[in-house]
Amino acid sequence: MSDILNQLHQVLEQRKGAAPDSSYVASLYDKGLNKILEKVGEEAVETLLAARDTDAGGDPKALINETADLWFHSLIMLAHLGLGPDQVLAELEQRFGLSGHDEKAARSERGD
Amino acid sequence: MSDILNQLHQVLEQRKGAAPDSSYVASLYDKGLNKILEKVGEEAVETLLAARDTDAGGDPKALINETADLWFHSLIMLAHLGLGPDQVLAELEQRFGLSGHDEKAARSERGD
Amino acid sequence: MSDILNQLHQVLEQRKGAAPDSSYVASLYDKGLNKILEKVGEEAVETLLAARDTDAGGDPKALINETADLWFHSLIMLAHLGLGPDQVLAELEQRFGLSGHDEKAARSERGD
Amino acid sequence: MSDILNQLHQVLEQRKGAAPDSSYVASLYDKGLNKILEKVGEEAVETLLAARDTDAGGDPKALINETADLWFHSLIMLAHLGLGPDQVLAELEQRFGLSGHDEKAARSERGD
Repeated sequence: MSDILNQLHQVLEQRKGAAPDSSYVASLYDKGLNKILEKVGEEAVETLLAARDTDAGGDPKALINETADLWFHSLIMLAHLGLGPDQVLAELEQRFGLSGHDEKAARSERGD
Repeated sequence: MSDILNQLHQVLEQRKGAAPDSSYVASLYDKGLNKILEKVGEEAVETLLAARDTDAGGDPKALINETADLWFHSLIMLAHLGLGPDQVLAELEQRFGLSGHDEKAARSERGD
Repeated sequence: MSDILNQLHQVLEQRKGAAPDSSYVASLYDKGLNKILEKVGEEAVETLLAARDTDAGGDPKALINETADLWFHSLIMLAHLGLGPDQVLAELEQRFGLSGHDEKAARSERGD
Repeated sequence: MSDILNQLHQVLEQRKGAAPDSSYVASLYDKGLNKILEKVGEEAVETLLAARDTDAGGDPKALINETADLWFHSLIMLAHLGLGPDQVLAELEQRFGLSGHDEKAARSERGD
């Protein structure tokens, strides 16, 4: 399950240049950055409300779905601006001293 | 770089029950869901503004940093509610017919 | 122009209990608080983006329209929860030592 | 209470050009549009969460306070961009056929 974000990024890259009516993602690219950012904002709000619903005893699946929407539209935003998830994950890795491939080695190098 | 979100989730799980002043994450858990959600919302807003800055010629590193903040606080929200990134990634995988472990096989099944 | 918010609040009160398909406001009441809050959040995001557009030389009318949408949906939220703009304006008045009816008198009382 | 927004706008106009450390508003002007918009976004999020708290039985005063914060920072945003509440209220008046001064007259003109 670990490479989903990168695989999804590749799908988003492939849809660049496609006809606007060929897919949801192609239509968002065509509408431009503001529309993409509106969607990121909307999904963030829906995530907050779903988190409150989950906390009040609601089905956690709704929160999983909204978080998936939020991350998905974040990826569209990144792709539209020529960026991708690897750069975000590398930032998180660096902040927290993690490494998917050789965390131990990385720690050794840092003398942890 | 692929397992960063899950490694980060494990770090977040380990910090549960720690003294509130022992780390930023422990202090957020202690302040409760609303404070965590405020942070998710703030980081979403900062991501939107950084995306506009990048689009206007600004340094894309700022957008990478803000997106990392957004995803990081999403993970804290999920952990606080007993959920984790694997469930979100599984949802994305299912929606888009992707698979981290056997994408090729999946494509074959779909006849790609 | 000064009583617009209160007049609007009265309109919103009158639409309570109306058939959901009789007006936009009635349909929002019927869908419930989360839907109303989603709209407040969406309009906040659109306001931010319109402010950036205005700052970049765009037509300020778009920002006026989005801010009107934001305030309007704030009023729907308040009305849905049994509150109104007078309470918000009273809070602002108190914070800043203002008074719509007799600001001078108020200042005298405070010895300004 | 009806002129609070315009009175507040005048206060905000007067603080333009003041030393950044002379007041909260002056410091926000000095930090620039993004910082002001971050605050608008934060207050919108806090308003949504307070609305959920009120709906769950919490003190409505918290929601009044957050809505006041949201409207207040909207006014700072407008002032920073050379706009004001009268334009927003005029837009709402026009949409809903209201008038603070002579609603009846306006209705007559429209043949209501």
